[in-house]
Amino acid sequence: MPTINAGRLLSDLRRFAQFGAYKTGVHRPTYSREDMDSRRWLAQQYEAVGLQAHIDGVGNVFGMPRSGRRSLLIGSHAESQDYAGWLDGALGVIYGLEIARTFAETLGCAGLPIAPVAWADEEGHYVSMLGSRSFVGDIDEAEIDRAVNVDDGLPLRDALREAGLAGVPRSLVEPKRHVGYLEAHIEQGDALEASGNRIGVVTSIVGIWQYSIVFYGIQNHAGTTRMGIRKDAGVAAATLAMAIAKRFPEVAGPCSVWTTGRISLEPGAPSVIPGKAEMLFQFRDSKMPVLERLDAVLRELVKETAMKTDCRAEIEQTETGKPCHMDPAFQDAIENAAARHIPNAYVRMPSGAGHDAQVVARRLRSAMLFIPSIGGISHHWTENTDDADLVLGCQVLTDAAEAILRGEGNT
Amino acid sequence: MPTINAGRLLSDLRRFAQFGAYKTGVHRPTYSREDMDSRRWLAQQYEAVGLQAHIDGVGNVFGMPRSGRRSLLIGSHAESQDYAGWLDGALGVIYGLEIARTFAETLGCAGLPIAPVAWADEEGHYVSMLGSRSFVGDIDEAEIDRAVNVDDGLPLRDALREAGLAGVPRSLVEPKRHVGYLEAHIEQGDALEASGNRIGVVTSIVGIWQYSIVFYGIQNHAGTTRMGIRKDAGVAAATLAMAIAKRFPEVAGPCSVWTTGRISLEPGAPSVIPGKAEMLFQFRDSKMPVLERLDAVLRELVKETAMKTDCRAEIEQTETGKPCHMDPAFQDAIENAAARHIPNAYVRMPSGAGHDAQVVARRLRSAMLFIPSIGGISHHWTENTDDADLVLGCQVLTDAAEAILRGEGNT
Repeated sequence: MPTINAGRLLSDLRRFAQFGAYKTGVHRPTYSREDMDSRRWLAQQYEAVGLQAHIDGVGNVFGMPRSGRRSLLIGSHAESQDYAGWLDGALGVIYGLEIARTFAETLGCAGLPIAPVAWADEEGHYVSMLGSRSFVGDIDEAEIDRAVNVDDGLPLRDALREAGLAGVPRSLVEPKRHVGYLEAHIEQGDALEASGNRIGVVTSIVGIWQYSIVFYGIQNHAGTTRMGIRKDAGVAAATLAMAIAKRFPEVAGPCSVWTTGRISLEPGAPSVIPGKAEMLFQFRDSKMPVLERLDAVLRELVKETAMKTDCRAEIEQTETGKPCHMDPAFQDAIENAAARHIPNAYVRMPSGAGHDAQVVARRLRSAMLFIPSIGGISHHWTENTDDADLVLGCQVLTDAAEAILRGEGNT
Repeated sequence: MPTINAGRLLSDLRRFAQFGAYKTGVHRPTYSREDMDSRRWLAQQYEAVGLQAHIDGVGNVFGMPRSGRRSLLIGSHAESQDYAGWLDGALGVIYGLEIARTFAETLGCAGLPIAPVAWADEEGHYVSMLGSRSFVGDIDEAEIDRAVNVDDGLPLRDALREAGLAGVPRSLVEPKRHVGYLEAHIEQGDALEASGNRIGVVTSIVGIWQYSIVFYGIQNHAGTTRMGIRKDAGVAAATLAMAIAKRFPEVAGPCSVWTTGRISLEPGAPSVIPGKAEMLFQFRDSKMPVLERLDAVLRELVKETAMKTDCRAEIEQTETGKPCHMDPAFQDAIENAAARHIPNAYVRMPSGAGHDAQVVARRLRSAMLFIPSIGGISHHWTENTDDADLVLGCQVLTDAAEAILRGEGNT
């Protein structure tokens, strides 16, 4: 059995967190100097394991076995959210590297083809899941031409040129070259911690349905307009938010989540009755019938709110991701490995967050493993995981990778 | 009896609306070129009536009778809100000019001392009611040093220098020189129109109490954080808004109004549970006990909401204007004049909007007259009033001014 080098794993995770270090976390936006430095460092490490490394035209880093045999891709994304945690993405990337090294060093495993990968811009500084979408052929040059940085508006093309990637070809998946894809990630929630589990075997990645809901009232003077004749778009938005809070628990699934991330009132002045209110609302579930039910209830509540508040309403669905189911045999491989190490401390669970695995799964058999997030904290520089869990997760994924590759006829 | 020249009044109102004309309204921010042009034009008109005109150090334009006798100030503010209506402020300013002219031309009235005035920045491009506050001695140089333009941050000092007002002294009220102050204004609401009245005799100007209310929840991932453990600051804000909508009507006065003008959720991203929510909330009433009752209920609701949503709350009162009562004898003078012209179409009413009169009233006997706003529309370029009402309002104010001055012993 291949056994990882726990000290090396932890040391590499900490080395990787030096790229863009911020407090106890990292600030490593896609294509920043720190991000590109980290990708070049990864390519060097892949080469040192004897792999053929390259960075493709959107910054994905691949380490391909020189044997050319069908390999198992293992990785995650290398960049971070702004001023965020050290493990989100980096964990799966360094796991891929450590597993490749471990196999290379282990008698009887050196021939098992592991291909570590680090995707670019899963976090969407330019385009959410850009790297994995490029890999599966789900992005064209025109979309890349149009894309800009969400914070400062820098065109993606300019960022790619500054990163030295102009003219570099984008690597496209060749399904025959790969057995599949494994991704490890911190849970980013507290379900594992709260239930005393140390490994989550991801069954599916939730579908995210997102909406822009706009209410139109009548903008007017907040001092001279009698309450009785007001059409206050802000009151309409609050009314809808409360209707959702009351009704959704009755129709949601046990793992459904829903969030109003933004409310904007126009003109937003203290003495003006808002004439327009915009809400960004989303819900997530791993089951299509639940998503469809929540959609129907939401539309009904928007209509009711518009009637009740006498404000015209518009609802536009801006995202309709389908739930993505992980490969059953790969799930079993991860579960079997977990069961050997921690018989009573693993659980099958859906992922509430989106991940590159849901994109790669369109073309390759894919699965994911979660390890606990302390306090459920993520997307924040205080994000962390116990060292013992960091090590355990990597060993479980290593065992699963071995089982998958041997199952494929590798010896 | 002095009779105004209706054609001249309407023509001057339209001439004044040429300064910064925008669609059917005006864009004439304080100290803009258009605003200063309009003030210099006013000074010329005052001089042409035989008055001693000057523009003081904050842009107030005064036309003082050369006789030096105790005069009745009549006016309003000359600047406009951004891209707003042609009558807000301008109406009262041109009424002051027309009344001064009418008195000068009318046998037996030429000796009645009218002092037209145009205040600066009632609309608060820099400091709300700057001109009238400066006149009553309620602003010091340090506040002027600190003030900046609310839109572009230009220091008030720079704006004053560019307007040619650096080093020009600010005129301070000398109570013995003035009988009092009259201001005409469009209603900016629909109470007159809805009740079929053409003149409003203002009894008081409401107090505005304003609050910044902040809820602190826990910012977290909108996909991985179970509903059961969330502390969503946005939900807290919506909960408070609905609690206010339910409870305030039970405790408010018949003319109370309340408005949530802004809700800001942080970080405001679709996939992040808001960790902080800020609301700008205000209410207005003309009675102190009502204001105090609403304040107490608001604080109670904020506390209840914090408990219910498990989000910490902070409430800060940012404005505590006392209601301001208009001079009873001046009110009678306006009412008597209205009763002669339109026996069944005038009404006593509070003002829901703030006006320079509430500032001037601290040092001089003051009163206000309202004329209808078509559709109650104001702070918008479509703001308008029937010509017949524009003329009627000026004649009523003229008659009231004559009565007030003759009552003071002028003949």
